[in-house]
Amino acid sequence: MFGRTYFCGEVTEAAIGETVTLKGWVQKRRDLGGLIFIDLRDRTGIVQIVFNPDVSQAALEMAEKVRNEYVLDIKGKVVAREEGTVNGNLKTGKIEVVAEELTIINEAKTPPFTIADKTDVSEDIRLKYRYLDMRRPVMFETFKMRHETTKAIRSFLDGEGFLDVETPILTKSTPEGARDYLVPSRVHPGEFYALPQSPQIFKQLMMVGGFERYYQIARCFRDEDLRADRQPEFTQIDVETSFMSQEEILSLTERMMQKVMKDVKGLEIEAPFKRMSYDEAMGRYGSDKPDTRFGLELVDLSEAVKDSGFKVFSAAVAGGGQVKAINVKGAAGKYSRKDIDALTEFVAVYGAKGLAWLKAEEEGLKGPIAKFLDEEVQQTITSLLQAETGDLLLFVADKKSVVADALGALRLKLGKELELIDQSKFQFLWITDWPLLEYAEEEGRYYAAHHPFTMPVREDLPMLETDPGSVRAQAYDLVLNGYELGGGSLRIFERDVQEKMFSVLGFTKEQAESQFGFLMDAFEYGTPPHGGIALGLDRMVMLLAGRTNLRDTIAFPKTASASDLLTEAPGEVSSEQLQELSLSLNLKKEKE
Amino acid sequence: MFGRTYFCGEVTEAAIGETVTLKGWVQKRRDLGGLIFIDLRDRTGIVQIVFNPDVSQAALEMAEKVRNEYVLDIKGKVVAREEGTVNGNLKTGKIEVVAEELTIINEAKTPPFTIADKTDVSEDIRLKYRYLDMRRPVMFETFKMRHETTKAIRSFLDGEGFLDVETPILTKSTPEGARDYLVPSRVHPGEFYALPQSPQIFKQLMMVGGFERYYQIARCFRDEDLRADRQPEFTQIDVETSFMSQEEILSLTERMMQKVMKDVKGLEIEAPFKRMSYDEAMGRYGSDKPDTRFGLELVDLSEAVKDSGFKVFSAAVAGGGQVKAINVKGAAGKYSRKDIDALTEFVAVYGAKGLAWLKAEEEGLKGPIAKFLDEEVQQTITSLLQAETGDLLLFVADKKSVVADALGALRLKLGKELELIDQSKFQFLWITDWPLLEYAEEEGRYYAAHHPFTMPVREDLPMLETDPGSVRAQAYDLVLNGYELGGGSLRIFERDVQEKMFSVLGFTKEQAESQFGFLMDAFEYGTPPHGGIALGLDRMVMLLAGRTNLRDTIAFPKTASASDLLTEAPGEVSSEQLQELSLSLNLKKEKE
Repeated sequence: MFGRTYFCGEVTEAAIGETVTLKGWVQKRRDLGGLIFIDLRDRTGIVQIVFNPDVSQAALEMAEKVRNEYVLDIKGKVVAREEGTVNGNLKTGKIEVVAEELTIINEAKTPPFTIADKTDVSEDIRLKYRYLDMRRPVMFETFKMRHETTKAIRSFLDGEGFLDVETPILTKSTPEGARDYLVPSRVHPGEFYALPQSPQIFKQLMMVGGFERYYQIARCFRDEDLRADRQPEFTQIDVETSFMSQEEILSLTERMMQKVMKDVKGLEIEAPFKRMSYDEAMGRYGSDKPDTRFGLELVDLSEAVKDSGFKVFSAAVAGGGQVKAINVKGAAGKYSRKDIDALTEFVAVYGAKGLAWLKAEEEGLKGPIAKFLDEEVQQTITSLLQAETGDLLLFVADKKSVVADALGALRLKLGKELELIDQSKFQFLWITDWPLLEYAEEEGRYYAAHHPFTMPVREDLPMLETDPGSVRAQAYDLVLNGYELGGGSLRIFERDVQEKMFSVLGFTKEQAESQFGFLMDAFEYGTPPHGGIALGLDRMVMLLAGRTNLRDTIAFPKTASASDLLTEAPGEVSSEQLQELSLSLNLKKEKE
Repeated sequence: MFGRTYFCGEVTEAAIGETVTLKGWVQKRRDLGGLIFIDLRDRTGIVQIVFNPDVSQAALEMAEKVRNEYVLDIKGKVVAREEGTVNGNLKTGKIEVVAEELTIINEAKTPPFTIADKTDVSEDIRLKYRYLDMRRPVMFETFKMRHETTKAIRSFLDGEGFLDVETPILTKSTPEGARDYLVPSRVHPGEFYALPQSPQIFKQLMMVGGFERYYQIARCFRDEDLRADRQPEFTQIDVETSFMSQEEILSLTERMMQKVMKDVKGLEIEAPFKRMSYDEAMGRYGSDKPDTRFGLELVDLSEAVKDSGFKVFSAAVAGGGQVKAINVKGAAGKYSRKDIDALTEFVAVYGAKGLAWLKAEEEGLKGPIAKFLDEEVQQTITSLLQAETGDLLLFVADKKSVVADALGALRLKLGKELELIDQSKFQFLWITDWPLLEYAEEEGRYYAAHHPFTMPVREDLPMLETDPGSVRAQAYDLVLNGYELGGGSLRIFERDVQEKMFSVLGFTKEQAESQFGFLMDAFEYGTPPHGGIALGLDRMVMLLAGRTNLRDTIAFPKTASASDLLTEAPGEVSSEQLQELSLSLNLKKEKE
């Protein structure tokens, strides 16, 4: 079993005449005219092996026992394929290997699905048999791309003087943010570690420590109810730097992404990336992570319709809400009343009480609400939406947030349906000028829009006490094709500002001290101005690889219920283990 | 605060005449003859700033407020130092920067210890103020070396076609091995994840999945009582490959270490490394990780003394034990009876009931036991130990394991005391031919010497049932200067062998199935022969950096009681958090 001389996918015409040793898996076996043909596969590709009784009767007989996915060790001679049998789809398609020796290294049961890029087996089965799923070339290519992505990032950041430093996984639980995964301590009964939601505190402490330029491809954890694009553990490209301005950090990130795009996709991406304020993004796209590869922008008609005869519109504006619309160019003929009813149901999910519509025809705007809008209003609408014959106009009148959510989602849905999106495009976009705080009405308190360590815009500082909702953050998000790749900010580096921030967030002095006292203490020992960014690696790879499922970029992902279907984690543990941790289970009885 | 033009440590003669902008920390301030001198420090080094009232009175006045560790932004002109004031110890010692503008970016309280390489402050204080400890240049250099080490490893493995793949941190608890850290699941009440002790299972599954060459700089976790050189979380260089022989894996590892030594230390290291069987290492050095930079080897005298008149010796041999000795060359004069009594106490810690000794004098062997040994035995001892006048001979007679432990430790102690060790040397050594199993007498069962997935030597397979203790493993450890850097093995890749292994380890069929059924199932779907290695990164960096404390290589390490003194993890959590996890605390009352 020694001395492989070639990978399967790399035996080409250059090797004709050579005796080679190959190892791999049986992709397919065909018996034909007394000969046996085996497609032998390894991670580099496939090569055709021929068993010929005139060359080795023993090898041929052994080959008869071979089934799909058997592991073989083959010695043979590389020969040119006869004309007419050349396979132009294979890198190795001009040659074949005439087997002289065959060893069956290991056998294989029939796999529950075929090892091929295209598969219609359920994802649960793929996850349970992940080790077979991984043999599909498209999976291997995705992990190779993930490797190349981190390689490009490491190479770039190393060149910029960033040090790769590991931060702890067993850390302290802090209630702000998402729910922590907890780890009971055996040595300190009744106490717990928490798995980090990000290395935020540690990277800031390293800046206090004068490291100046830190990065880490860091594992992070959130015990949240999972959506399709979330995992309980995920990986972020975590960067922090001292003495850099926001501009310098954005430029650094842009150069990093240029390197990634070049090394991984062979693409030259223009920088600086487009920038857009949070307000502009919400206004034009109804989203803080807009996909700007296509139009269908939201147009504000509130002013135009506030005095119109259509009560739904005028009441919305009077109540402090908005009326906005998108113009679906040339789509009037494509959407029947029934189709529009379906769109109405779609926006209802986002809280919209209705979806008004008009079609632009040669004679003017037509549709159920046309009669409520007088000539002048209709003309203003036509002009603001640049409506032309054949256009479909869709309106939502509601609270500002509902209008944004509903039309933002509708815009994306229509963009996909109408194939308005250039899928080959990688459109990077910075969202800047975020609000520092968000007000949660139910709880009557402010939350940090990013996290409590984000630096407010200097001149807004006095408003922290008088008008917290208007304070802007020195924060920025990077968006790619409508996905949030990640974000960052400059950080607070003065104790008094950090104290004020905690106070605005509703911490008592004692709570702030007990949870983050060590950080505020650190700020008093000569802390440099610092800031950074964190980008989601899993999502980045998903977009680079053109996949739509985040789990396809993670070797051993978890399901929506945070289970590993392969190893069957989580699982029960012994009572001795619990006892050592001073814990007992407190299971609710199931309701009858 | 924008536009730093130089790092402090990089302003040299080449910059004379330039106006530069610097950022950094105040290392020292001196007031001298109306001028103020400040040593400004960043991670690259120190540069001298001069404040001169003739250049800027405002800057001088501002400089008067400055204290150690203040963070400054300085604009000034680089000038040559006057002759006589040149500092040959500094890279920047030929120049100074005449300040034109000074901004105090942040102030600093007086740190609890001076920021300097040499410090006598307690480690607890250093850990509590880790962010200040990190500012000591020696600490930064260590982390830079760690960065360079992983960079060299990644570069090498990437070149060899290894893919960097992340494996889960939230995994399944398996009772074999050390104690797991557990993570309660909220979604699955009463169930737990475990933090991985290593990615072992996952890397093997990737080999089943055809990835062929995998590596990861992987975080691992063990909830053990900590020794000085252990941490609850540690990092290993984790490598696995398919279709490679043991020889090929050793060679791969050697080339990787050559690259590391070259890139990080500038040293050319010879390969192949020396190899030694486990039995030879235990026999000659009393250790499975011998420091072979010096002699003081153990010599077996059992045969020579088994019939001697000294009952301690003859009884030990008769009881199945051994008598071994080391010859401490020329040390007879250096060790008094009192010194030897201290050595006796030292070996007692390892279970040795005594330490017999003889000194070689011109007239022959002298010492309290000489009278029990006749002329012939004395001559044999002299000859076997190659004793010459002035040598000190130290004997332990006991069970084989006690003899090895006691003399092995004594050898190391004496090697250090007598300065026999060339501290500049990096001596790599492979230990091979390990036993597969170890017998635990108290429990009357076998344990896996490495882990249950280690492949036995093929021809020993039949002995698994008849004589498990004699089965050899296809395993290898890499030793550097007496430290175990790590180890690896070829793995079992056939279901029937793995089943047999679990059975020898005392698993019932059901236990094996419930814990590792998924792995054995995987083996049935075409598993290639595979193997790998895992090397401890923390320890490697410690040895490369010439440090003696593992914690100095970890940015935020934990103490011997697994606490983080900086963030004060672990800590208490709220009852709501526990309730969500269906847990309650079960704290024992303290004894009165």
